[in-house]
Amino acid sequence: MKIIESPEEMQKQARLLIQSGEYIAFVPTMGFLHEGHLSLIRLAKEYSDTVVVSIFVNPAQFGPNEDLDAYPRDFARDEKLCREAGADILFYPTSQNMYLDGHSMWLSEESLSTVLCGASRPGHFRGVCTIVAKLLNIVQPDFMVLGEKDAQQLRVLRRMVRDLNFAVKIIAAPTVRAADGLAMSSRNKYLTSAERKEAVCLFQSLEKAKALFAAGERDAETLKAAVRAVIEATSGKVDYIELVDDETLQSVQTLEKPALIALAVKFSGARLIDNTVLAP
Amino acid sequence: MKIIESPEEMQKQARLLIQSGEYIAFVPTMGFLHEGHLSLIRLAKEYSDTVVVSIFVNPAQFGPNEDLDAYPRDFARDEKLCREAGADILFYPTSQNMYLDGHSMWLSEESLSTVLCGASRPGHFRGVCTIVAKLLNIVQPDFMVLGEKDAQQLRVLRRMVRDLNFAVKIIAAPTVRAADGLAMSSRNKYLTSAERKEAVCLFQSLEKAKALFAAGERDAETLKAAVRAVIEATSGKVDYIELVDDETLQSVQTLEKPALIALAVKFSGARLIDNTVLAP
Repeated sequence: MKIIESPEEMQKQARLLIQSGEYIAFVPTMGFLHEGHLSLIRLAKEYSDTVVVSIFVNPAQFGPNEDLDAYPRDFARDEKLCREAGADILFYPTSQNMYLDGHSMWLSEESLSTVLCGASRPGHFRGVCTIVAKLLNIVQPDFMVLGEKDAQQLRVLRRMVRDLNFAVKIIAAPTVRAADGLAMSSRNKYLTSAERKEAVCLFQSLEKAKALFAAGERDAETLKAAVRAVIEATSGKVDYIELVDDETLQSVQTLEKPALIALAVKFSGARLIDNTVLAP
Repeated sequence: MKIIESPEEMQKQARLLIQSGEYIAFVPTMGFLHEGHLSLIRLAKEYSDTVVVSIFVNPAQFGPNEDLDAYPRDFARDEKLCREAGADILFYPTSQNMYLDGHSMWLSEESLSTVLCGASRPGHFRGVCTIVAKLLNIVQPDFMVLGEKDAQQLRVLRRMVRDLNFAVKIIAAPTVRAADGLAMSSRNKYLTSAERKEAVCLFQSLEKAKALFAAGERDAETLKAAVRAVIEATSGKVDYIELVDDETLQSVQTLEKPALIALAVKFSGARLIDNTVLAP
């Protein structure tokens, strides 16, 4: 596995790979890898000759009161995990190289990104879209593998690729969960041990919604209330619980088409998200 | 010369060219080609194996009260001119294919594009950056050739390419002028014949500034006043006359570094722009 720090060098390598007829699959990450990331890397290998993983904690997608400085980092461990999972190139740029002095160019998605996490975290998706556009231009992949856990991010980036004609196909990979059902997240480590036990409530609340839906419930308010009851039985504070159209991310009242149920819950140490699709 | 209407087909062709080791140079245009465009196409040929010219009147860069519907179009003539100038591929997409239903992804440059034409035409550079990003992703050129006549556009797009890491090198080509000095523009045809004679005032006012500068004048207000006097001797109405730092586009009072003098003038039939760099 090659480690590349310079964007220019990464772009040059990508060009050589393309000219030699190879297909590149790309897994963008913020590091502190867990089994979820590794599943993306393994899936990327199935699609390509060369798997590029990027590790970059993107300052532009953190709000002023968010956890940029505290975001967990462990490059030595990440490097080992990438190697073991089969990555061919690890792209690990510095913030100085990614945002040059006077950086003034930004991407914004003006529909899907205004709700859910976009409403709770102003500027977050502007930062996500801008960095992913940069990474796509540097890595020039044929495939980009993203996790379904970040449901809104997946949909916003699909829209970005469509609207800006990026020559990449997005592959979505299912959420990887701990034995009790908690979705893998780099932020789980900030939970106290009591919170870690309670955090399974996100998964359980979605299971509850799925069971009600399977039993025929189609009223969004009823489903959301059931989810809320599961969360509120813990110390977690609901940031949002939303039931939205799976394509437009607009609120739905009655489920007639595939809908995304998404929630964000704040514990003392971390804000966690999870989601599932309810398809009639 | 091949004519391609579909973005997907254009992107597929570009990929094949890159895989076969060819270099692509790209000239984006809104059609109604004149000698200025043709000079860009000829310059593009010097840099590449394949020259792609796009013709697309981009609705997103016109304001609600601007001349989108009236913008001149003559595809048969453009096609002939492209062929004669040596273009290999003419990319001619429809608006429906370029802006799909629900398009919601936009680029914005937040520093250089706020002054000059950006101040007079809100949203203009957002439209320019978004369409050029799309075209770069579709055509995947190694070189993009742009005219110096659109001085601010050139600088905003250079910033876009830098900040978003597009794998393209921008080549700037000098403004092509009529015998009397008027800069070539598709909009010149809207001038009345009296205005066409007066329109040389833009060029003459810049020549005046250059002469004063060569004689040692370094005060921006004095230089701008001299430009204004030349314009105001005609029926043209000054939209703006600005003297700005050539890199940051911020106003300068005293010329110590290369400065851009740029102006926009409204006649009854068309708003014209021109510029020159004054380098100490």
